[in-house]
Amino acid sequence: MQKNKPVILVLNGPNLNMLGKREPEVYGSTTLDEINEGLKRQAEELGVEVQCFQSNSEGALVTRIQEAFENADGIIINPAAYTHTSVAIRDALLLHDVPIIELHLSNVYKRDEFRHKSFVSGVATAQMAGFGAMGYNMALQAMADMVKGG
Amino acid sequence: MQKNKPVILVLNGPNLNMLGKREPEVYGSTTLDEINEGLKRQAEELGVEVQCFQSNSEGALVTRIQEAFENADGIIINPAAYTHTSVAIRDALLLHDVPIIELHLSNVYKRDEFRHKSFVSGVATAQMAGFGAMGYNMALQAMADMVKGG
Amino acid sequence: MQKNKPVILVLNGPNLNMLGKREPEVYGSTTLDEINEGLKRQAEELGVEVQCFQSNSEGALVTRIQEAFENADGIIINPAAYTHTSVAIRDALLLHDVPIIELHLSNVYKRDEFRHKSFVSGVATAQMAGFGAMGYNMALQAMADMVKGG
Amino acid sequence: MQKNKPVILVLNGPNLNMLGKREPEVYGSTTLDEINEGLKRQAEELGVEVQCFQSNSEGALVTRIQEAFENADGIIINPAAYTHTSVAIRDALLLHDVPIIELHLSNVYKRDEFRHKSFVSGVATAQMAGFGAMGYNMALQAMADMVKGG
Amino acid sequence: MQKNKPVILVLNGPNLNMLGKREPEVYGSTTLDEINEGLKRQAEELGVEVQCFQSNSEGALVTRIQEAFENADGIIINPAAYTHTSVAIRDALLLHDVPIIELHLSNVYKRDEFRHKSFVSGVATAQMAGFGAMGYNMALQAMADMVKGG
Amino acid sequence: MQKNKPVILVLNGPNLNMLGKREPEVYGSTTLDEINEGLKRQAEELGVEVQCFQSNSEGALVTRIQEAFENADGIIINPAAYTHTSVAIRDALLLHDVPIIELHLSNVYKRDEFRHKSFVSGVATAQMAGFGAMGYNMALQAMADMVKGG
Amino acid sequence: MQKNKPVILVLNGPNLNMLGKREPEVYGSTTLDEINEGLKRQAEELGVEVQCFQSNSEGALVTRIQEAFENADGIIINPAAYTHTSVAIRDALLLHDVPIIELHLSNVYKRDEFRHKSFVSGVATAQMAGFGAMGYNMALQAMADMVKGG
Amino acid sequence: MQKNKPVILVLNGPNLNMLGKREPEVYGSTTLDEINEGLKRQAEELGVEVQCFQSNSEGALVTRIQEAFENADGIIINPAAYTHTSVAIRDALLLHDVPIIELHLSNVYKRDEFRHKSFVSGVATAQMAGFGAMGYNMALQAMADMVKGG
Amino acid sequence: MQKNKPVILVLNGPNLNMLGKREPEVYGSTTLDEINEGLKRQAEELGVEVQCFQSNSEGALVTRIQEAFENADGIIINPAAYTHTSVAIRDALLLHDVPIIELHLSNVYKRDEFRHKSFVSGVATAQMAGFGAMGYNMALQAMADMVKGG
Amino acid sequence: MQKNKPVILVLNGPNLNMLGKREPEVYGSTTLDEINEGLKRQAEELGVEVQCFQSNSEGALVTRIQEAFENADGIIINPAAYTHTSVAIRDALLLHDVPIIELHLSNVYKRDEFRHKSFVSGVATAQMAGFGAMGYNMALQAMADMVKGG
Amino acid sequence: MQKNKPVILVLNGPNLNMLGKREPEVYGSTTLDEINEGLKRQAEELGVEVQCFQSNSEGALVTRIQEAFENADGIIINPAAYTHTSVAIRDALLLHDVPIIELHLSNVYKRDEFRHKSFVSGVATAQMAGFGAMGYNMALQAMADMVKGG
Amino acid sequence: MQKNKPVILVLNGPNLNMLGKREPEVYGSTTLDEINEGLKRQAEELGVEVQCFQSNSEGALVTRIQEAFENADGIIINPAAYTHTSVAIRDALLLHDVPIIELHLSNVYKRDEFRHKSFVSGVATAQMAGFGAMGYNMALQAMADMVKGG
Repeated sequence: MQKNKPVILVLNGPNLNMLGKREPEVYGSTTLDEINEGLKRQAEELGVEVQCFQSNSEGALVTRIQEAFENADGIIINPAAYTHTSVAIRDALLLHDVPIIELHLSNVYKRDEFRHKSFVSGVATAQMAGFGAMGYNMALQAMADMVKGG
Repeated sequence: MQKNKPVILVLNGPNLNMLGKREPEVYGSTTLDEINEGLKRQAEELGVEVQCFQSNSEGALVTRIQEAFENADGIIINPAAYTHTSVAIRDALLLHDVPIIELHLSNVYKRDEFRHKSFVSGVATAQMAGFGAMGYNMALQAMADMVKGG
Repeated sequence: MQKNKPVILVLNGPNLNMLGKREPEVYGSTTLDEINEGLKRQAEELGVEVQCFQSNSEGALVTRIQEAFENADGIIINPAAYTHTSVAIRDALLLHDVPIIELHLSNVYKRDEFRHKSFVSGVATAQMAGFGAMGYNMALQAMADMVKGG
Repeated sequence: MQKNKPVILVLNGPNLNMLGKREPEVYGSTTLDEINEGLKRQAEELGVEVQCFQSNSEGALVTRIQEAFENADGIIINPAAYTHTSVAIRDALLLHDVPIIELHLSNVYKRDEFRHKSFVSGVATAQMAGFGAMGYNMALQAMADMVKGG
Repeated sequence: MQKNKPVILVLNGPNLNMLGKREPEVYGSTTLDEINEGLKRQAEELGVEVQCFQSNSEGALVTRIQEAFENADGIIINPAAYTHTSVAIRDALLLHDVPIIELHLSNVYKRDEFRHKSFVSGVATAQMAGFGAMGYNMALQAMADMVKGG
Repeated sequence: MQKNKPVILVLNGPNLNMLGKREPEVYGSTTLDEINEGLKRQAEELGVEVQCFQSNSEGALVTRIQEAFENADGIIINPAAYTHTSVAIRDALLLHDVPIIELHLSNVYKRDEFRHKSFVSGVATAQMAGFGAMGYNMALQAMADMVKGG
Repeated sequence: MQKNKPVILVLNGPNLNMLGKREPEVYGSTTLDEINEGLKRQAEELGVEVQCFQSNSEGALVTRIQEAFENADGIIINPAAYTHTSVAIRDALLLHDVPIIELHLSNVYKRDEFRHKSFVSGVATAQMAGFGAMGYNMALQAMADMVKGG
Repeated sequence: MQKNKPVILVLNGPNLNMLGKREPEVYGSTTLDEINEGLKRQAEELGVEVQCFQSNSEGALVTRIQEAFENADGIIINPAAYTHTSVAIRDALLLHDVPIIELHLSNVYKRDEFRHKSFVSGVATAQMAGFGAMGYNMALQAMADMVKGG
Repeated sequence: MQKNKPVILVLNGPNLNMLGKREPEVYGSTTLDEINEGLKRQAEELGVEVQCFQSNSEGALVTRIQEAFENADGIIINPAAYTHTSVAIRDALLLHDVPIIELHLSNVYKRDEFRHKSFVSGVATAQMAGFGAMGYNMALQAMADMVKGG
Repeated sequence: MQKNKPVILVLNGPNLNMLGKREPEVYGSTTLDEINEGLKRQAEELGVEVQCFQSNSEGALVTRIQEAFENADGIIINPAAYTHTSVAIRDALLLHDVPIIELHLSNVYKRDEFRHKSFVSGVATAQMAGFGAMGYNMALQAMADMVKGG
Repeated sequence: MQKNKPVILVLNGPNLNMLGKREPEVYGSTTLDEINEGLKRQAEELGVEVQCFQSNSEGALVTRIQEAFENADGIIINPAAYTHTSVAIRDALLLHDVPIIELHLSNVYKRDEFRHKSFVSGVATAQMAGFGAMGYNMALQAMADMVKGG
Repeated sequence: MQKNKPVILVLNGPNLNMLGKREPEVYGSTTLDEINEGLKRQAEELGVEVQCFQSNSEGALVTRIQEAFENADGIIINPAAYTHTSVAIRDALLLHDVPIIELHLSNVYKRDEFRHKSFVSGVATAQMAGFGAMGYNMALQAMADMVKGG
């Protein structure tokens, strides 16, 4: 029975489906599929299950977060552009009481002023930014500790 | 023929589909379905028709408002998170010339600063906040008076 | 003995005594006396008692709110201009633990920027704006439910 | 083979599907379909191909911009309400290296304060506002020059 | 019958009753009574009637403005400290359709930053500041022209 | 003859008449009358006279400050809510040249943002906040030193 | 010898040369030449001399103010658009120690937000706004009093 | 007789006389004279007359706009630096009731923050930015349509 | 054994070591040593022990506050310039649960705008400003009451 | 020879020496010494060397960062309170060209507004917040990857 | 042939022609002519040529800066009032690639808040303020070093 | 006896000890020691004495400024990072009545927004920025003139 392992939802917001396909010199050449594959292998080792979801749609991300109410034990989210504009995603996360890690590939504080504000930070347990693709693995490792320790 | 009765569109924004399912101690244990059922019974008594729609998607809400151009005589909207971020919903409402009631379950002025700004208020006829689920019934009653008096 | 019925205090701030006497095309032709008469008839039906008070003086309104400490079970207040400038009224209301409904005749969000800020909202249970004179009846109905349910 | 001609993507944001159907005295009586038809005839003459897309959904617009990575040589976008709120559309455009023209039917600087800020301007090559439906033809003409000259 | 002459209400706000009694080197040694006497003599010559009223109470000023609805043809007001804080006085004036002159003894723009904002300016016909006691005579002269010309 | 002793005016603003009657767990159970009694006993020992005045009305407080021009040698004022909104009280105090102590029962800097601004501070000699009822005694002691030393 | 009479410089800023020629329904049909003629006749009666100057050029206005250092006894200035943008005019006026009256035809506080700020107010003796062409005569009368009294 | 053709005034603000002479890699190598020549040829084809004027002086630009009151049917203006600082130019344009196109060579939204504010936008019919020298031709074409259609 | 008496730490920030040595006409001629001597004598009478510490170094003040964790029963702090800039001192105080009095010699609200903000106020029990050297004695008296009453 | 292994400097700012000693329920009961011990063991495994330094003094932290110019290959810094106030630490880090990880124990975005601004973020390679003591190990692991990969 | 020596343009903005003629106690009694004479003598010694220009007109200053494109090797500018308001002067300087020194006679940071912002600073090589007339000589000396060293 | 010559204190703030050692392409290759040596030679010629001090510690700089009360006749200070954050240094300088020159190596107005604010400017006699190492010599020359002239 699948739910024996803790389930960790890994959410990716708009344009992250283009990872590795555009401007590899900036964002690296690893695609989102490759990241997800890597997370699944790492999950195996950590004794957890990961569920990966990407969407360009704010509403679809909200819906996916709601669907996790019953069966996710932790959420790792890279909200991308919605970080700065989505109260709806914040509200969906707000209804959860599992640990939440907010993750950004690049150091958002070196970018446009409007990227310094995050609607997600106020409801997340922890944040990471600037670690590139490696950040997902760090986040999964940390989340596994949180959900297994909790 | 159905259109003999005035039609009132009741719109609910993101995460309101979770009403009664999460944090009942805060938002009450009434579900959105139950609210909608109550509104339909009340509509019957008031001699109006209600059409209920909920979506987590900003675009879907915009589209639903557009579809009402031909056949709605009044709009009651709880834009939830989109209250504070959606110019698109404001613009869709702006094209209407029927009465519009903006409704919030909780007193948004006791919550985060960013929840004090509403893009909808400037195009609504009236607003209500903090009456809980009862607010929907108050709004329907008032809207019925408006559309029948108008 | 009078106090068998719940008592609801209905407060009106500066210039509301001119209701129906100036610019009827904007504010309607109903006078404050007529509104108060209507509220008394409605109170009878609802099994509550209403006490109505209007003043142009901030201090008189504060004093009237204080006098309600012993005998009011709910407060409906249209603070008018003092909405935006009176911390004293906020402080007087703050000392109460009965439900408070803040009411505005017009949609303040379509008016001057400085009318968007309310010192009362942060201490009210609920707010209504834009329903015209009908709003008082809606508020009394809602308040009766609150105080009798409470 | 179709791709012999440069391809120009013409994107329209939320509520622009209502063009010509609501408030013709403000926005004119030309519908979006009529504009698109006109653009196709003009494209023929200019020796370019236009692809037209409208959506009320931010996510759908993002996805459509991504799909253009392989085959569009220029983008004309009227982001409508999303001009002021969408970082996601900005990010999708940011990944492109083709010319981008931002277009608004009306002079946004005569409207609400919040309409003065554009998330798209910082990533567009050029902007136009206030030329009405004629603006699309001006933009296509200019874009044809840009992509053929480039 | 007194109302044959146009009536001009001259209002003075808080602390102006101390005029000439405190800091004469700053505000001059003319008292408010002397100013009012002068205005009455000047009114005689101009063929108008002046009614003078001073109060330290915001509410009393509001009430006096309301009482003028029936019988004043023009209002000269030095709102003093209430210039910067009273929406209630603004609202009372807003209901009038007679000419209104806002007057300040000193140049408020050389004083504290918070004295630069006036709630009255937006509803006044004209303003004057910095002319000292002479300003009242200038205002009465101008008002007489306005009400007799109108 | 009474004026042999220095006179110290002790002013209390809106809602302070409720001291000890509402929320004793927050503001203590000492009433304003008890505080005033204590101040009178302390004044006796210090060889000064205290005059105590409380009002919910901004105008009445202004008038009381003006009445002190002739006979007060120092002013202790807890402006309560008017701290943050009254330019009129500031202006009345500004005309004095006796020492002025501004006093708050609680630490206003731990409360709402709008309570951090004081119109009185700029014209006071000294301020105190957060000492509870004891603060009045500290202020009287200090004021006695000031007026007897001056 | 001309300089026996006090000399009053009347300065008018950009676009005031169009007075009476454009939008007479807004600004009246009196031209600037007619105003200047009226001022000269009034000056005769008051025993003063007026010198009138209008320019659309900020620099020319600065130079004219400098030229007045030797021979003007008072300055009446309607800086028009330069009110809100010219530090240079402020600096030129700052070097004077004669009385300065700042004048605006219309009530600038009912117009655009950016028209509420004046660089001139901080260096003027007095201001007037909203009296239309009559304002020039009021200002000249007042200035004559100032320079003859001084 | 010259005035048979509609007259279009083309105004260029400060430093645009250097076009093509400094930093050609940024602003292109076309000089303002060449642009004006091109506009004249294009005007011939369009059946309109263009009058070109450049000045580094705000006042001279204001005066030129005033001179157009009698004989211009449309204005194309590139206010350059005065875009961000000149209320005087705005006021001069404000008195016109012909169509006005505001034009910028570069995308001002990619430059300094202070270049994002335009005093002209609020009084223009339409704006264009970022089309380089080609923008003048686009504007003339559009203006010809406007003045001939109007 | 020393710790029988409650211990009160008296901290003074940068430049307070110059007290009485520079600008005695502003800050008085009492030196910090004399103040400390006075506090020690007063402590004796009150049955408490005072420990006095001054430093120009933010880090040294932080360290001294930390050292007080084990043995201070109350802290009186005049953070001087660090009031407005030191989060580190705030954080050190934040870890304490003894009463804290923030003290300023002069009325900071009559000085530079940047001196109106205090990082310490939000973590202090009470504040005093403007009482000069006497303020230390008032604070010690009050603190003795607090720690002995507690 | 020691410098065979990459050297990673681990810096801790003010009050972090109190870790585990005050409010363990908030910050955990692990002391900074224990964290440093753990980092040293982990470094051994990772084949890197860690050097740990804590100070309450901004200047001492600056000096320690400068000393690392010759021999550190990466910096992990928890600037604590200096995050929000120290340009000096930013400047010292700015002169480095090794990877820098900024680390906070708690989620600073759930705390005071002034803690949302970081002077360090703009010069760091990556940030982490909210992972508690575990964050140091995550950072060391990531830094080891960075310095060995680089 | 004159151009053998490096040419340094010395520009002075509005009201500086009054130097030494008004308020000598503030600005000194040295006139601008005397300053210019001194600079010419100093230039002789330094082996450079100075060209001096003053204007009250923004446009004239812009034009003079443009004329320097061909023959100036360095610019010293005291923009006076235009420092704070002129984007046109900034733009003219921006087109230069010679060293630019911005100079102010007085310490602008001790004056009005609006004098703290400079449009010139962002395009200057260096700034000086508060050195009085001596500052011109310091600037010339430094500029001679720059142009001869470069 | 040493004090026959005027003494000038030259203070350098944090990170300036690294001058010439890091990023020589930006800050030049001159070290602070070399600058100080040069100043000493120049002082000899000017007949003054210089005392040089650098520290990374805010408190140490404050203390050094205090020590100068008895024996410095002028202060040249490059506060580096503390320019923007230190009220303590401002306060120490504020107690001096000797001339103070604030100096920055680079043009701070071309760098981060937060570097545009200086706490020192308001208490300095004069400022210089952007002259590189040469600026110290210019400052010393100017200061020698000031202290010998005074």
